[in-house]
Amino acid sequence: MRAAVMRGKKLVVDNIPTPVPGAGEVLVKTLACGICGSDLHTLKHAEKLVAAARKTGAPFVMDLTRDIVMGHEFCAEVVDYGPQTQKRLKPGTRVCAMPVLLKASGIESVGYSNESPGGYGELMRLTEFLLLEVPNGLSTERAALTEPMAVGYHAVQKARLDKDDAPLVIGCGPVGLAVIAALKLAGMHPIVAADFSPRRRELARQMGADLVVDPKETSPYESWRQMAAYSDPAKAPMLPPWMPGPAVRPAVIFECVGVPGVIESIMLAAPGNARIVVVGVCIERDQIEPLTGISKELNIQFVLGYSPEEFAATLSHLAEGRVNGDPLITGKVGLEGVAKAFEDLASPETHAKILVEPWHS
Amino acid sequence: MRAAVMRGKKLVVDNIPTPVPGAGEVLVKTLACGICGSDLHTLKHAEKLVAAARKTGAPFVMDLTRDIVMGHEFCAEVVDYGPQTQKRLKPGTRVCAMPVLLKASGIESVGYSNESPGGYGELMRLTEFLLLEVPNGLSTERAALTEPMAVGYHAVQKARLDKDDAPLVIGCGPVGLAVIAALKLAGMHPIVAADFSPRRRELARQMGADLVVDPKETSPYESWRQMAAYSDPAKAPMLPPWMPGPAVRPAVIFECVGVPGVIESIMLAAPGNARIVVVGVCIERDQIEPLTGISKELNIQFVLGYSPEEFAATLSHLAEGRVNGDPLITGKVGLEGVAKAFEDLASPETHAKILVEPWHS
Repeated sequence: MRAAVMRGKKLVVDNIPTPVPGAGEVLVKTLACGICGSDLHTLKHAEKLVAAARKTGAPFVMDLTRDIVMGHEFCAEVVDYGPQTQKRLKPGTRVCAMPVLLKASGIESVGYSNESPGGYGELMRLTEFLLLEVPNGLSTERAALTEPMAVGYHAVQKARLDKDDAPLVIGCGPVGLAVIAALKLAGMHPIVAADFSPRRRELARQMGADLVVDPKETSPYESWRQMAAYSDPAKAPMLPPWMPGPAVRPAVIFECVGVPGVIESIMLAAPGNARIVVVGVCIERDQIEPLTGISKELNIQFVLGYSPEEFAATLSHLAEGRVNGDPLITGKVGLEGVAKAFEDLASPETHAKILVEPWHS
Repeated sequence: MRAAVMRGKKLVVDNIPTPVPGAGEVLVKTLACGICGSDLHTLKHAEKLVAAARKTGAPFVMDLTRDIVMGHEFCAEVVDYGPQTQKRLKPGTRVCAMPVLLKASGIESVGYSNESPGGYGELMRLTEFLLLEVPNGLSTERAALTEPMAVGYHAVQKARLDKDDAPLVIGCGPVGLAVIAALKLAGMHPIVAADFSPRRRELARQMGADLVVDPKETSPYESWRQMAAYSDPAKAPMLPPWMPGPAVRPAVIFECVGVPGVIESIMLAAPGNARIVVVGVCIERDQIEPLTGISKELNIQFVLGYSPEEFAATLSHLAEGRVNGDPLITGKVGLEGVAKAFEDLASPETHAKILVEPWHS
């Protein structure tokens, strides 16, 4: 089959062996697969990702001297079944799935693996048990957003929001946009967001943010403070006396940037007792000042991925129109266009999410 | 009055002006005042503490070119009242209080301030409103433990423990010992703790730890894992599939060391979904690997101090014998002995908590 292959630090289109579905597995044709910021990071810093995965037991341990086909945000079509399958869905059925294979030995990544090519190739093998049929006539493009939107949904679930909490989203790339959509779905109000890019600020508004600021012009934290002030100060909770400030609702700040220094900048600017949810995936080493966290009694919740239930719920939200991810999709390419798309995605002004359609030229 | 004064980077005994109680304030005689690890840090790194306080708004901004009398873990005796006081307690009454002055302008630290000398001096001024009478004939020595024990109590409150959570205490200095006492009070079982010092391991056992390990010999995390295993694996919660491991109860790890590198070492060794409560006060810059937190979905809760309610509850726990802090007290000195006591406290083998009795020679 043809695929856009990560070979060394380059993306090249080449013919590679067609995947053969093993026991419990199904062969699928990739219909559309979104390009994720983590893939951009991986192309640049794969060795860091692998080193960190080795340390923590995360399933991203790859042999970087061998070919890797990335792509984990896909909608696909059932083609054929391997042995020991139930053949529950007819060939031609459109499906989504969490990008993992279930194995007796544990789980294996699809898309960050030498053995399991991801959606930047024409064909993939997936675990039958994990397939979710695309419901309700949902378009292939929208179904391919299930994975990135599930990331935002999970982050908001892990934040365990109270009705009174006031969210602030730092960074409006695809991760921040997915968080905004999930906050909207959860009925949170107001939603304040910040990004340096005018295009992304516009997308954030389309996704449901109530106020989107340019940090170059306005402090996101000051804007948040004004939006989060209690109309009735008597309702405000008592803060410890060493945390002076106006009576504001509890702050829940979503870090959706994922580069070194952002966590610390949020800790410095956050109000007392703030909860920081780290959704951006920073694969480089970082620095913090513990005393900043201590004197404000900050809470930092790191999050990753989603549960199977959250993934299925997100597909359903998209299918029922409760979540609209359309603003995210800013382009489509065939396999020959993947390398260029990776370059284009470096600029926030042109693109948010580009879908790869491996069968189109 | 006489006091052990921080002058530059030295502690010297000298005569300084007797404090004059202002409006709403009371003059007290210091009966006993514990030496806190933070005071040791401050003597060495005061400029770092002040710089960090400036950044975060914490009330530890002092002029280091002027005299400072530290000491914030005190039991004292009412001597005289300033103007606009209710004179609720008779002179001679023994009292404890949070080490802060309430002012119209906000709060002011007692002990980390140029204006409000702390318990390493013969006399202090305190806010009348904050005085708590020592109840139940509780000894002065035990009453002086209210402040450090309240730190442990607050940390355990902030951890929002479930009955099923299994705690691990890293570091058995006074902070770790106070956390162990609070865990015991909360009915947590088993309590696993770790310290390199045999003396402190012995103290940890006396305070109620069920298993105390020497990290040089045994991994605290392995020991914890064995203690925290579910007897019935069917009861274990599902972990995300990329977090393999035996079925163990949720981990709540208390960082009670407060030096650079400890937070990261805990993040690396922690099981998936662990909550880390940072009680140790590290006033130096630190490094972390965000991907470690991300791939395990760790939660970090920084804590500081205690609420007025927690402080009062701790005094009551000590008075009612529900908490026994006696093992902490390993020595007493007069003012002339303070400098030497600071040196002695650097070695964990000789001391945990030394009480200063300013009126004794």
